[in-house]
Amino acid sequence: MLKLFYAVGTCALASHIALEEAGAEYTTVRLNFGEGDQRKPEYLKVNPKGRVPALVTDEGILTETPAILAYIAQLFPKAGLAPLTDSFAFARVQAFNSYLCSTAHVNHAHLGRGGRWADEPSSLEDMKRKVPKNVGDSFALMESEMVEGPWVMGKTYSICDPYLFTVAGWLPRDTVDIARFPKIHDHHKRMAERPAVKKVLAEHKA
Amino acid sequence: MLKLFYAVGTCALASHIALEEAGAEYTTVRLNFGEGDQRKPEYLKVNPKGRVPALVTDEGILTETPAILAYIAQLFPKAGLAPLTDSFAFARVQAFNSYLCSTAHVNHAHLGRGGRWADEPSSLEDMKRKVPKNVGDSFALMESEMVEGPWVMGKTYSICDPYLFTVAGWLPRDTVDIARFPKIHDHHKRMAERPAVKKVLAEHKA
Repeated sequence: MLKLFYAVGTCALASHIALEEAGAEYTTVRLNFGEGDQRKPEYLKVNPKGRVPALVTDEGILTETPAILAYIAQLFPKAGLAPLTDSFAFARVQAFNSYLCSTAHVNHAHLGRGGRWADEPSSLEDMKRKVPKNVGDSFALMESEMVEGPWVMGKTYSICDPYLFTVAGWLPRDTVDIARFPKIHDHHKRMAERPAVKKVLAEHKA
Repeated sequence: MLKLFYAVGTCALASHIALEEAGAEYTTVRLNFGEGDQRKPEYLKVNPKGRVPALVTDEGILTETPAILAYIAQLFPKAGLAPLTDSFAFARVQAFNSYLCSTAHVNHAHLGRGGRWADEPSSLEDMKRKVPKNVGDSFALMESEMVEGPWVMGKTYSICDPYLFTVAGWLPRDTVDIARFPKIHDHHKRMAERPAVKKVLAEHKA
């Protein structure tokens, strides 16, 4: 049985949606970041990084969203969540998810997590001021160069879609208007109508 | 025929080594970041992100190191550069490479690329001061929790190894002593002795 550790408002949402889309049997454990659950010894035994998501499997524990998403796609091939038999198409999926984790998510993280990379209050304010431009630039690039539409990879829904939905969900906090990116805006609305997404969001909001 | 765009001193080194280890037939194009080659219109047609690596394949262009590395492993299965038939083991490889790109590389990037995330000179200095601790912390975590030794994934060399070698190669610039991490230090020395690594480094230094 799979067990997903998540926290509300984090990138763990992507893995949660993917599990639901895959039709997986799984349980969840919600961490409360406000209470520092991710830094408590019992969780550091699960994930020494002190981050979410972490996916407990029968074979061991996995971390890092792109790895978990690809694992879910491979574990449930009938769900068709990634082009598993086409190396180039699979690499394009991985490249998109890698851009989300190493660039788009990192740009967003400078809003509320600037303390990871600098200490002075003036530096943190400086970082915050730059977030709307940086996040906006990364979404503009995804809109023009990466997202094919209607889904990220074109006609077929994949593990890129819940991840884009998750990071795009932070745009209001980043004070970036999603309407600037018509394909991504349309994608976001279509994602929100999927039963799997509705079910997962209901759990996160409960 | 594969064609790799790289620049000296960048993470593109990992993909270059992997191509060599795979026994691939490929050509390379070296960009000069000092002259801003990565921002020139002809390169932005290859990779609109203005970054390296970019791998031109017969099917299209790939970017993002974790995606390129996994693609090389899949394209040359006989080289045994990833556990392609074991979803969990493959996910662990992807998780390690994802940590390198989204955390370890990002921590390093605040040394010389802080201008991506802040504007004031005082902020950039603040970021630089924090780099030794942040990079040191991420290497301490890899040393204690991730790198099995002698190779990253244990007995078998994989696409994690050239990527770790590449990011660890930045430790002198980060003023972090690699000797603090005995497994990674040993790994670095063993990597440097591999014929593929020697050949690629000779090209980069030429």
